[in-house]
Amino acid sequence: MIRTLKVKAGKTITNIPVELLTQDVNKDSWYWVDFNQPTDEELKLLDTLFHFHPLAIEDCGPSLQRPKVENYDEYLFIVVHAVKERRNERKRFGVHEVNLFLGENFLVSVHLDDQPSIDQLFTSFEKKNRSIEYTPNYLAYLIIDHIVDEFFPLVEYVENQLNKMEEKIFHIKNPTDHLINQIFYLRRSLLSLKKIVLPHRDMLSILLHDDFINRDRRTRAYFMDIYDHLMRLMDRIDNQREIVSGLLEMCLSLQSKHMNEIMKILTIFGTIFLPITFISSVYGMNFEGMPELHWKYGYPFALGLMAITAIGFVIYFKRKHWL
Amino acid sequence: MIRTLKVKAGKTITNIPVELLTQDVNKDSWYWVDFNQPTDEELKLLDTLFHFHPLAIEDCGPSLQRPKVENYDEYLFIVVHAVKERRNERKRFGVHEVNLFLGENFLVSVHLDDQPSIDQLFTSFEKKNRSIEYTPNYLAYLIIDHIVDEFFPLVEYVENQLNKMEEKIFHIKNPTDHLINQIFYLRRSLLSLKKIVLPHRDMLSILLHDDFINRDRRTRAYFMDIYDHLMRLMDRIDNQREIVSGLLEMCLSLQSKHMNEIMKILTIFGTIFLPITFISSVYGMNFEGMPELHWKYGYPFALGLMAITAIGFVIYFKRKHWL
Amino acid sequence: MIRTLKVKAGKTITNIPVELLTQDVNKDSWYWVDFNQPTDEELKLLDTLFHFHPLAIEDCGPSLQRPKVENYDEYLFIVVHAVKERRNERKRFGVHEVNLFLGENFLVSVHLDDQPSIDQLFTSFEKKNRSIEYTPNYLAYLIIDHIVDEFFPLVEYVENQLNKMEEKIFHIKNPTDHLINQIFYLRRSLLSLKKIVLPHRDMLSILLHDDFINRDRRTRAYFMDIYDHLMRLMDRIDNQREIVSGLLEMCLSLQSKHMNEIMKILTIFGTIFLPITFISSVYGMNFEGMPELHWKYGYPFALGLMAITAIGFVIYFKRKHWL
Amino acid sequence: MIRTLKVKAGKTITNIPVELLTQDVNKDSWYWVDFNQPTDEELKLLDTLFHFHPLAIEDCGPSLQRPKVENYDEYLFIVVHAVKERRNERKRFGVHEVNLFLGENFLVSVHLDDQPSIDQLFTSFEKKNRSIEYTPNYLAYLIIDHIVDEFFPLVEYVENQLNKMEEKIFHIKNPTDHLINQIFYLRRSLLSLKKIVLPHRDMLSILLHDDFINRDRRTRAYFMDIYDHLMRLMDRIDNQREIVSGLLEMCLSLQSKHMNEIMKILTIFGTIFLPITFISSVYGMNFEGMPELHWKYGYPFALGLMAITAIGFVIYFKRKHWL
Amino acid sequence: MIRTLKVKAGKTITNIPVELLTQDVNKDSWYWVDFNQPTDEELKLLDTLFHFHPLAIEDCGPSLQRPKVENYDEYLFIVVHAVKERRNERKRFGVHEVNLFLGENFLVSVHLDDQPSIDQLFTSFEKKNRSIEYTPNYLAYLIIDHIVDEFFPLVEYVENQLNKMEEKIFHIKNPTDHLINQIFYLRRSLLSLKKIVLPHRDMLSILLHDDFINRDRRTRAYFMDIYDHLMRLMDRIDNQREIVSGLLEMCLSLQSKHMNEIMKILTIFGTIFLPITFISSVYGMNFEGMPELHWKYGYPFALGLMAITAIGFVIYFKRKHWL
Repeated sequence: MIRTLKVKAGKTITNIPVELLTQDVNKDSWYWVDFNQPTDEELKLLDTLFHFHPLAIEDCGPSLQRPKVENYDEYLFIVVHAVKERRNERKRFGVHEVNLFLGENFLVSVHLDDQPSIDQLFTSFEKKNRSIEYTPNYLAYLIIDHIVDEFFPLVEYVENQLNKMEEKIFHIKNPTDHLINQIFYLRRSLLSLKKIVLPHRDMLSILLHDDFINRDRRTRAYFMDIYDHLMRLMDRIDNQREIVSGLLEMCLSLQSKHMNEIMKILTIFGTIFLPITFISSVYGMNFEGMPELHWKYGYPFALGLMAITAIGFVIYFKRKHWL
Repeated sequence: MIRTLKVKAGKTITNIPVELLTQDVNKDSWYWVDFNQPTDEELKLLDTLFHFHPLAIEDCGPSLQRPKVENYDEYLFIVVHAVKERRNERKRFGVHEVNLFLGENFLVSVHLDDQPSIDQLFTSFEKKNRSIEYTPNYLAYLIIDHIVDEFFPLVEYVENQLNKMEEKIFHIKNPTDHLINQIFYLRRSLLSLKKIVLPHRDMLSILLHDDFINRDRRTRAYFMDIYDHLMRLMDRIDNQREIVSGLLEMCLSLQSKHMNEIMKILTIFGTIFLPITFISSVYGMNFEGMPELHWKYGYPFALGLMAITAIGFVIYFKRKHWL
Repeated sequence: MIRTLKVKAGKTITNIPVELLTQDVNKDSWYWVDFNQPTDEELKLLDTLFHFHPLAIEDCGPSLQRPKVENYDEYLFIVVHAVKERRNERKRFGVHEVNLFLGENFLVSVHLDDQPSIDQLFTSFEKKNRSIEYTPNYLAYLIIDHIVDEFFPLVEYVENQLNKMEEKIFHIKNPTDHLINQIFYLRRSLLSLKKIVLPHRDMLSILLHDDFINRDRRTRAYFMDIYDHLMRLMDRIDNQREIVSGLLEMCLSLQSKHMNEIMKILTIFGTIFLPITFISSVYGMNFEGMPELHWKYGYPFALGLMAITAIGFVIYFKRKHWL
Repeated sequence: MIRTLKVKAGKTITNIPVELLTQDVNKDSWYWVDFNQPTDEELKLLDTLFHFHPLAIEDCGPSLQRPKVENYDEYLFIVVHAVKERRNERKRFGVHEVNLFLGENFLVSVHLDDQPSIDQLFTSFEKKNRSIEYTPNYLAYLIIDHIVDEFFPLVEYVENQLNKMEEKIFHIKNPTDHLINQIFYLRRSLLSLKKIVLPHRDMLSILLHDDFINRDRRTRAYFMDIYDHLMRLMDRIDNQREIVSGLLEMCLSLQSKHMNEIMKILTIFGTIFLPITFISSVYGMNFEGMPELHWKYGYPFALGLMAITAIGFVIYFKRKHWL
Repeated sequence: MIRTLKVKAGKTITNIPVELLTQDVNKDSWYWVDFNQPTDEELKLLDTLFHFHPLAIEDCGPSLQRPKVENYDEYLFIVVHAVKERRNERKRFGVHEVNLFLGENFLVSVHLDDQPSIDQLFTSFEKKNRSIEYTPNYLAYLIIDHIVDEFFPLVEYVENQLNKMEEKIFHIKNPTDHLINQIFYLRRSLLSLKKIVLPHRDMLSILLHDDFINRDRRTRAYFMDIYDHLMRLMDRIDNQREIVSGLLEMCLSLQSKHMNEIMKILTIFGTIFLPITFISSVYGMNFEGMPELHWKYGYPFALGLMAITAIGFVIYFKRKHWL
């Protein structure tokens, strides 16, 4: 589906046939074409009508591109990735490509998936007639800003999980396998988030140094703002990554410690039985001349010997802080 | 609450209504407006009276921004984070945002929390009438310097803790779990400190390269000084982080070593009992033709055999340095 | 074998003797010479006919060079590595060098191994007569692009393997040695891939900053596209490397956990038998005055005592969550 | 104590009162003032007489500054750290600050601790009358060079220790705890050394890019030489850090290996006794109808059975290379 | 020993007395002086005759300098390290310093050790009379190239060792201590190689950006070639370092796995004997009323009970995949 919108002398006109859009464009007017889930037919217009570079058009196809910005002299070609929450638990979000062709007096947006935020922008534009203050640059800012804002809840979700876990771990002695699995999973999520945020940050850094944006000081401040958001996101992700590594190390250390503690106690327990079993084994020997066997209190003596031995060991281990 | 202060021809006048401040400002005069925990009403003045950029005004709101500096041609917008000690132990400090609009002949400071250091600065300004030498730049330096100075006790606290711990660890053989927990906690604290200090350092590096500050060579030296403080703080934090990692590694290694030592001794102890229990078990057999059983000194012979075996093992293990 | 191809005034002529190629070259004409598995005789032409720099000619020899680009004023010398899948499992691909001499109006390609992609390019050129739009730069782009495209299946293969493994590992409790070996092997593969992709990326970065390419804005966009592909590849490889490290750590942790679990259960089992064996050993002593031995229900009493002891231990361990 | 020295038309005059120094300074003359452990009174001269920047003067105080260089247009302010060996073993060296104000025709050095190297320089200056070739820049070079030269023995000491240790470790099978402690300690020392050397290197890098030094090509070569020394020191420290990490890893691996070896042997020993103790235990049963008990050679048969079992196990374990 | 060589109007004259060399040098002539293991007397000529900078002359002494290049306006001072294989196994190569003074029309080489490659160069120069095409720059290139070429066999040796080891490790289950020691040793060798190659690479990078070399485009290509070699060496070393770390991790993991496997089997073996020894111990009790003892088939019953118990355990452990 193709939606069009033209601003001319401060007035907004929508749904002009695409073919008429490019005509009669001068300093005072500009237009926005949104290719929403376009057919192959419609995509061909990028070539035949707008004459964009074949490489840029190819990048609008279904294969996922790196977020990037390319300067084709008369227009910038910008690729950004929008995230969409998914219901199934393992991979929490999907990634969809949004392509923008940003020229002096036009903006062409192409996306193979439905983008509610762009729909909303288009509608609000139609209604509120705020077009006077808008420029293609500002519109591009609004679209990218909406997309980047969607990254925040993802990072915040992981941060909250991590905070909860951190609080928990400082109060337990033996982290369960489930907890450790969750930490492994959070670490994996942070890696996915980094994979999303980092290329966008790099892309905006390039965008901010591009002449195209630098000429327009006013909207540059807006793009600077997005860049700042992405810097902050990366800071938070990097920070969380360090925390998650620390937690993992601590949990594995605690778990191994706990396991060793159990083994130590069991071994000490076994060690106490060794000498007393030995004593009973000695008095189980069948020698003829074993005087103790014939003592009146031989049996209680043997039991007493065992008890003293056992108690002696317990005291010894307590003294050595092994128990 | 809004506090105002104007310097004109070397004289300081306080509490002029805000509306009158911006009038009659020339080369010789400048003013400082401090928005201390402002109401929403008061915040609107940033737009209506001072005409600051909407993005900068938005950043003055309650959501925490990254420490940063933005050049809006007529003024710099600076965000810094002030730290405040908290009583509860887990997170030792809170972070509060202070926003500065620094122009040629004005300084506007906005903070949603009470900042004692700014109060103090304001009061000392009123009293001492030192205004003649002051400029908005220098005032901004004083505010940022006060805020950055608050970072030092936090870093020093961790350093002291670490030094104590280091001294301790070099003299013990078996670090307690409590000690290891403390090290984990110190490592976590250093990460929090880094998260505070690093963005300030980056921000000052940008500030020092900004034309706005570079024009005024004299106060540039002052900002350079703050930058230097932050560099030193980061050096110390990075250094402590390496030390804390080393200590942790050493402690875990010592602890595991100690545990293994215990297990080894217990196992050796068990190993000595195995052959002597075996001997006693042999003479507990019920065979008819066991000559030893009928020897006169059969019993002492068996006991002697056991004693020799046990002593032999102890000597063997001592020789091998296993005991 | 030497194949030649000349484009003159929009027409393509093939298989002109090499000696005649360099004559009569002006603004409108250019030629391509492909040294396909050349003999030493043929290689000498690089010196005698084309007068290339001796160091560049030396690099065309059998010793493998780093992918690189060198500017010899009148021409660029470019080295790229083509990968070829191999059947034997351990090292999945071989590396072959392709050397390009790219001048204003010529392209000389030298490769000691057969390169199907270059063959195909040559043939399609002969047939389709698309020569009009082509330039030596564009031709060089096509060759490098084909070579770089061959990297993608290698990276995708590892990615797929890794995804499968990741899915598997989240559902098992005890990773087999075979699985861990596979992870080690995948990590090794990623290292090999990095070794291929990274120098190509660096090479293209240098190429894009070279005056030679910058003069021709149109094909620069094409080389930019290859650079972008290589950036994306490196991103994916780096990402996979982090994932594979995480998986390995998780697997080793799981495996060690599983092993410890077994040892714990066995030790607990042993611990339960120690006291009951001790009891039976006590009643195996040969003292005269052991009243229990003469009790009517002495034997069932002893058996009961053992049963109670054993059950008591099991309950105790269950309570402590050791079992 | 304040020492002064003036060079005028090639002659050196010492101990001129400070107040007279700054007068009558032209192209041909320059002076050196050394504040050796100055009183507060004397320090005030930095402000009243020399009019240095208040921040620089503040940095001369007792609080330790980062090694740094600051350009105050008319002079450079340089902070370096001199090291002094200490007798007590744990922290082998102390750090003392030396501050230099380096102007076109003066050098002012301030140090709160006694610096023998500066004393020596002062004396040699007085005596040898080499003043003709000297400039304030060259003098600053001499002071810094002396200070940096003091770093070498510290690094060499650690290197020698490390070399000895490395040689030792390659010949032992079970590193003692003492050895491992020493390695931990060497790693800590290297960290301290890095903390000293790194900021000096950074400082000299800045100094070499400063206009002040660049103007004087001749002494620039000297400062370049110090920079080179520091680069070499950092190289050596970094290298040693990698070696020490490798050694530590190797030692811990050897130690854990050795411990496991002991445990394995003990366990195998125990395993051999289990079946033969079982056999003797079987023939200790009190069943009526046990034919073996009544055999003529029943006892030797049982002993033989045990011997065969034990020997069989030993052979089996040897075959499996477990022993 | 001092060797001299002068090229004048295309002719080579050798062994001119040094004192006469520097006279009569113009555009068409240049000379090479080689200080081969010079005496202190000879070294003084660097100062008295050539007037080189004292710092550079000092660096020609026996203390080892970092590989470096210094621009003294009229000449470059270059320090490179030649490696020499040593027979004793632990440290496989020695490092010798070669110093070059490279001027517009002279090259002075100083080396305190015999350098066969320089001897060879000198001789080939005398004989072949190829002097016409040579320049001091090209000669310096030849010397450095020879020295750098010596690094390759060292790296290749380690690579081959590593490849062999890698192949081996993928087929064994229990790496021997000897193998692990070898890996530790290879890792150490790679560190030594890095220590040699890295500073040379940095030095050539500086050399290539120096005006001195940039003026002469033709030989710049040659130095570029050395730089390329060093880049490739560093790539290979870094790659090998990653591989060696991976191998080490794998070996330690395999070894620990193998050890645990043995302990598990031994423990399981012990666990099977515990209940059957308990049974035999029960029937060794001396109670009066133990009916089983008087059963006709009591003894076979007990033996059968033990057999069933043992077999049951084996089946259980097999089912659980513990055996």
